[in-house]
Amino acid sequence: MGDPAGIGPEIILKAWAARADDALAPFVVYGDPTMLRERARLIGSDVKVAEVAAANDAKQAFRDALPVIAVLLAAQSEAGKPDVKNAAATIASIERAVSDTANGMIRAVVTAPISKGVLYQAGFDHPGHTEFLGALADRHWPGRQHLPVMMLASDFLRVVPLTIHVALENVPGLITRQRIFETVHVTHEALRRDFGIAAPRIAVCGLNPHAGEGGTIGREDATIIAPAIRELRAEGISVTGPHSADTLFHAEARKTYDAAIAMYHDQALIPIKTLSFDDGVNVTLGLPFVRTSPDHGTAFDIASQGRARATSLIAALKMADAMSARRMAVRA
Amino acid sequence: MGDPAGIGPEIILKAWAARADDALAPFVVYGDPTMLRERARLIGSDVKVAEVAAANDAKQAFRDALPVIAVLLAAQSEAGKPDVKNAAATIASIERAVSDTANGMIRAVVTAPISKGVLYQAGFDHPGHTEFLGALADRHWPGRQHLPVMMLASDFLRVVPLTIHVALENVPGLITRQRIFETVHVTHEALRRDFGIAAPRIAVCGLNPHAGEGGTIGREDATIIAPAIRELRAEGISVTGPHSADTLFHAEARKTYDAAIAMYHDQALIPIKTLSFDDGVNVTLGLPFVRTSPDHGTAFDIASQGRARATSLIAALKMADAMSARRMAVRA
Repeated sequence: MGDPAGIGPEIILKAWAARADDALAPFVVYGDPTMLRERARLIGSDVKVAEVAAANDAKQAFRDALPVIAVLLAAQSEAGKPDVKNAAATIASIERAVSDTANGMIRAVVTAPISKGVLYQAGFDHPGHTEFLGALADRHWPGRQHLPVMMLASDFLRVVPLTIHVALENVPGLITRQRIFETVHVTHEALRRDFGIAAPRIAVCGLNPHAGEGGTIGREDATIIAPAIRELRAEGISVTGPHSADTLFHAEARKTYDAAIAMYHDQALIPIKTLSFDDGVNVTLGLPFVRTSPDHGTAFDIASQGRARATSLIAALKMADAMSARRMAVRA
Repeated sequence: MGDPAGIGPEIILKAWAARADDALAPFVVYGDPTMLRERARLIGSDVKVAEVAAANDAKQAFRDALPVIAVLLAAQSEAGKPDVKNAAATIASIERAVSDTANGMIRAVVTAPISKGVLYQAGFDHPGHTEFLGALADRHWPGRQHLPVMMLASDFLRVVPLTIHVALENVPGLITRQRIFETVHVTHEALRRDFGIAAPRIAVCGLNPHAGEGGTIGREDATIIAPAIRELRAEGISVTGPHSADTLFHAEARKTYDAAIAMYHDQALIPIKTLSFDDGVNVTLGLPFVRTSPDHGTAFDIASQGRARATSLIAALKMADAMSARRMAVRA
């Protein structure tokens, strides 16, 4: 469901309406059926909402209605007006979905946008969606170490930022051999398992302009990133770099790798949002379940005005379908 | 001429050969005629090289041959093998071109790629091409303050990095009110004078992810960039931001401004090279003369093998033509 006051409900309704055109696998919403019906009315949609008792019932219901497992809001939600009283339901909808995937009831989790600000006010103490999902993985798959890694993916590019919501001045201190190792390992494994690439090729961006230009612009590229890449290559992983980040994202360069590792937020998100603004997908790698989400926020300012595009959510649903189908094929 | 061992000579020959198709204004090379003839032979080109005594003679010669004002190399230059002995001629070719533009003999300077490493070995003490041109402007236009500002420009985007070849860890300390003011003023004036935009709109990127997300990710966006933008708006300049840099470069966003100011190298160069890898142009704003250059380096590894593309040099020649035509129209 995501934040009920954001564009989540609207794009969910629109995605269901597009289920045939986009050949979407059946999905079920963890959310408030009354709120969803109200939002359908607001945007003038004739989508029917069907409450189901369990995920198993969703597949049959999906043909004629949007199936919903009830996670009830504490207060009536007004579109565009986030309300801390409904933070608990937003969190519960994520928990219920992860619990159902742990129990084998559903095969992937797709999350709608949440507002960290609203959740923080309600006492949510995870830095973001991704870290919360890591904690839920630890709860449902105890005894295993989970390192959630964020990937942005589209038809044009897959890119993984090594650091995410960090002030730029703190980025250089976080570029460590361990972080590069963990991120490359998780990415490599996900490309094989979830994206079906037998021998994944990974390209790593430099931190500094021109990847440090031979050690003359900053030192991290030569002293940390390059040695880590050499060690990873010695393990047999096909990884190259550090590359000058500015020349790594044009069409010719993109043919040379399956995923790029960027050192920080804008280095990763500028190329993907420049190339794929409407259909980029946020994928969490390194979890015991498949999780994707649209690559945008709650957009409270345009919520339930009928203007939000479901393109990114539809891409997220399709990617979750393809990734989980590959995992199941391996298990079978 | 640029570095004679790089791809400069080859792309100059190719640009002249394309002069009719690309409707190029006449240009003259400051360089070594023997070296250019040798390079033509190497790449199997039948371009004729015509030595001319002065720029005034170039216009007539241009129809049938590549006009060259002799700036002789000290040693024979081998393609792909940079030689410090020829650094003086590389520097002299730039000096001669600027001197001729100061004297009104030519109306714009287009530079071919140089190798800073080679020039440094020869005692060159400017950080790069751009700063050297600023020093030459000070020499020929004494008593005026010149602040050269680098812009990358293509049909899709104009972007100006506030800092350039600086280690990422040193970027935050260089984001100052004064630097933002100077850069926005120079950019605004250039958009009016050289690009013919009557009321330029400038968009400024934030330094941190999501432009600091309301002061929660880093402080510079709220404490330095936002106040500087407010002051500039109070001066009547149409400038907006700080914007989240990742959502500023897709097609819809690019319609909202005439130039973007980025805070650092990769934030500026990733979007322009992702969108316009082959035909981006490097433009120096803030000089008393028009200067453009192709947006790539010497590429010693492929020099004079016939593989280098002249697309970016041709775009640089056309942009220099258009910019200087506008300046002359204003003077006339």
